[in-house]
Amino acid sequence: MNTLNKPNILILGGGYGGIMSAVRLQKELGSDEANVTLVNKHNYHYQTTWLHENAAGTLHHDKTRIMIDDIIDMNKINFVQDTVVEIKKDEKRVILENQELTYDYLVIALGADPETFGIQGLKEHAFSIRSINSVRQIREHIDYCFARYNNDGKRDELLTIIVGGAGFTGIEFVGELADRVPELCREYDIPREKVRIVNIEAAPTVLPGFDEELVEYAINNLERRGIEFLVNTPIKECSEEGVLLATGEEIKASTVVWTGGVRGNHLIENAGFETMRGRVKVEKDLRMPGFDYIFVAGDCALIIDEEANRPYPPTAQIAIQQAYTIGRNLKALINGKNELETFKPEIKGTVASLGKGEAIGKVGNKKLFGATASAMKKVIDNRYLYLLGGIPMVVKKGKLKLF
Amino acid sequence: MNTLNKPNILILGGGYGGIMSAVRLQKELGSDEANVTLVNKHNYHYQTTWLHENAAGTLHHDKTRIMIDDIIDMNKINFVQDTVVEIKKDEKRVILENQELTYDYLVIALGADPETFGIQGLKEHAFSIRSINSVRQIREHIDYCFARYNNDGKRDELLTIIVGGAGFTGIEFVGELADRVPELCREYDIPREKVRIVNIEAAPTVLPGFDEELVEYAINNLERRGIEFLVNTPIKECSEEGVLLATGEEIKASTVVWTGGVRGNHLIENAGFETMRGRVKVEKDLRMPGFDYIFVAGDCALIIDEEANRPYPPTAQIAIQQAYTIGRNLKALINGKNELETFKPEIKGTVASLGKGEAIGKVGNKKLFGATASAMKKVIDNRYLYLLGGIPMVVKKGKLKLF
Repeated sequence: MNTLNKPNILILGGGYGGIMSAVRLQKELGSDEANVTLVNKHNYHYQTTWLHENAAGTLHHDKTRIMIDDIIDMNKINFVQDTVVEIKKDEKRVILENQELTYDYLVIALGADPETFGIQGLKEHAFSIRSINSVRQIREHIDYCFARYNNDGKRDELLTIIVGGAGFTGIEFVGELADRVPELCREYDIPREKVRIVNIEAAPTVLPGFDEELVEYAINNLERRGIEFLVNTPIKECSEEGVLLATGEEIKASTVVWTGGVRGNHLIENAGFETMRGRVKVEKDLRMPGFDYIFVAGDCALIIDEEANRPYPPTAQIAIQQAYTIGRNLKALINGKNELETFKPEIKGTVASLGKGEAIGKVGNKKLFGATASAMKKVIDNRYLYLLGGIPMVVKKGKLKLF
Repeated sequence: MNTLNKPNILILGGGYGGIMSAVRLQKELGSDEANVTLVNKHNYHYQTTWLHENAAGTLHHDKTRIMIDDIIDMNKINFVQDTVVEIKKDEKRVILENQELTYDYLVIALGADPETFGIQGLKEHAFSIRSINSVRQIREHIDYCFARYNNDGKRDELLTIIVGGAGFTGIEFVGELADRVPELCREYDIPREKVRIVNIEAAPTVLPGFDEELVEYAINNLERRGIEFLVNTPIKECSEEGVLLATGEEIKASTVVWTGGVRGNHLIENAGFETMRGRVKVEKDLRMPGFDYIFVAGDCALIIDEEANRPYPPTAQIAIQQAYTIGRNLKALINGKNELETFKPEIKGTVASLGKGEAIGKVGNKKLFGATASAMKKVIDNRYLYLLGGIPMVVKKGKLKLF
């Protein structure tokens, strides 16, 4: 590969936005048009939207991760496994733990950090569902608490799991826990009624902003399966012992998992870019304001829904669509065109899984419940795998029922 | 069942000695001869000699345990699931956590307690391989340490496992760990060379007293598979951080498992019986000195090997043989005979497993290595299951290779 006189495109992050940008550039660009480099901490990509299943222990994390060399052609894209330390925007340079890279064009797709809203102790004592490393630790932590119970004074708090936040991740996670806990009880000789799973939400309802009928379906389904909900209940403090609620009530729990929100990666603010909660309010063509050669994708990009006059929640769906736009816009720039495509998210539907065979969702104006919604969720997941690597990838990593 | 005028036989403990005594009495006695009651903490019996495999995670604990109602006929033997709190020998009464029982004849088969030889911190900070509850905690603890590693500063001590004591249990346990660790490394993305398994022994050699050639075979085999040995090295202190050796060296380790020795159950001393390290030097017919109606079996009984002029090590093999003698002697006593059978252990062989397909052993004067010894180990295990419950039990719980 001749690297001379070709522009260097550098993609930071191998999540939905980053890996898909790499895939699109691999397709859009000829090898003589640019050098494309992807930097990622791990040699694998993972499906963030499946991590709650790995954390609960209902799906093995190897199903969720995909080796990067299974997705991109290492002859066409340079892959650097390293961790980004700093973006030096004025020098067009990126410092990694083990080397430095320069760029002509940059795609920032560094994902999210947990947003703890200043709640004391949350950062230190709560787990978060954010990476393969973090979710297998959650899975093993819960297993270990259950394993200790009969050996360690049968302390109730060992069997209490608090999930902070009842947004999509929180609800999907407690749905998986409802499936997993009976298995754990069998494994460790524990009566199911000793286990508490408490989902705590500061807003007046779970899944704030979602269709009321669907929310009610979800609550009924989950309560029937042993989940307790506390809404309108901010967490004041988190400690090794559990949580202190704003009401003054204390709940002792050995496991606290925070799903209450995310913000953009701190590296963006650190670099001196302007952000709102770590996210960049990008231009219509997904470029960083004031930086014509920098694109931002995924959890780091803030996109306003003009109709609703509020930001779109950052989702895998939007990140993937952004990568298509970024791919085409980079190709245009390299070819000297100045008219770039405007990004317009196309919300195809939203489905929240509640566990095995159970889900709620909305596709257009149509509401989906139970098995139908669950099937739709699998269709969405498999569709993404198809975009990543065609039919072979769907066969390899898809959630398929083989008849 | 008519309980009037029939003597009450009470068996305390459902380990090898206790459960086998119950099985033998069920066979030896007619239902009009005595009421037999078995007390055990759990509703299952387990194979203590397999626990190290459950602790390492190479065998699931459900293979090791057998439900008591699968072994004894609940119509012939009363089973009480409860924990013994105190033996009131002068009142022929036993206090359980939830009730009290009286007896005419007592079989004490309460198993062992760990012997820590006064080493500071060992009781608080080291695990021991002693029950289903304890070994599944060890398994999950090790899993959890590995799961934390990549998430928690890659601290070496998370991957260091110290096994105190290189007797049979210690050696068999590190043999299983050598098999298990590569699996754990794959599961948690950890390079094998980061993991240390250190077997520490105060005596000048591992397996003290065992055939030298076999010991050398074991050491070579285990060292080749990544086990480090420190012999002649007493542990001075154990803490949350790891161990302090008598040499002054400190080894940081998140996991310390103590296999350095056992003593008889403390309840026997507490009752006021005379013991040596918690064990009763029983009469030739296995009765408690001075108590014609009390038998002692298993880890609680001290039997002298007259030829070697030292106690036999307490093994499953001897406990099972004792149960046969106790069964016949109780039958004789109930039938008014005063001449009781003398217990004579018949040591059929000793085999130590070193992991999958690897073992060392001695049967008579014949030394066994590798696959042969490993096959012999399985024969011994299956033989016990046959004694417990015939062919169906062997099929259900045996270590069978089905061709």
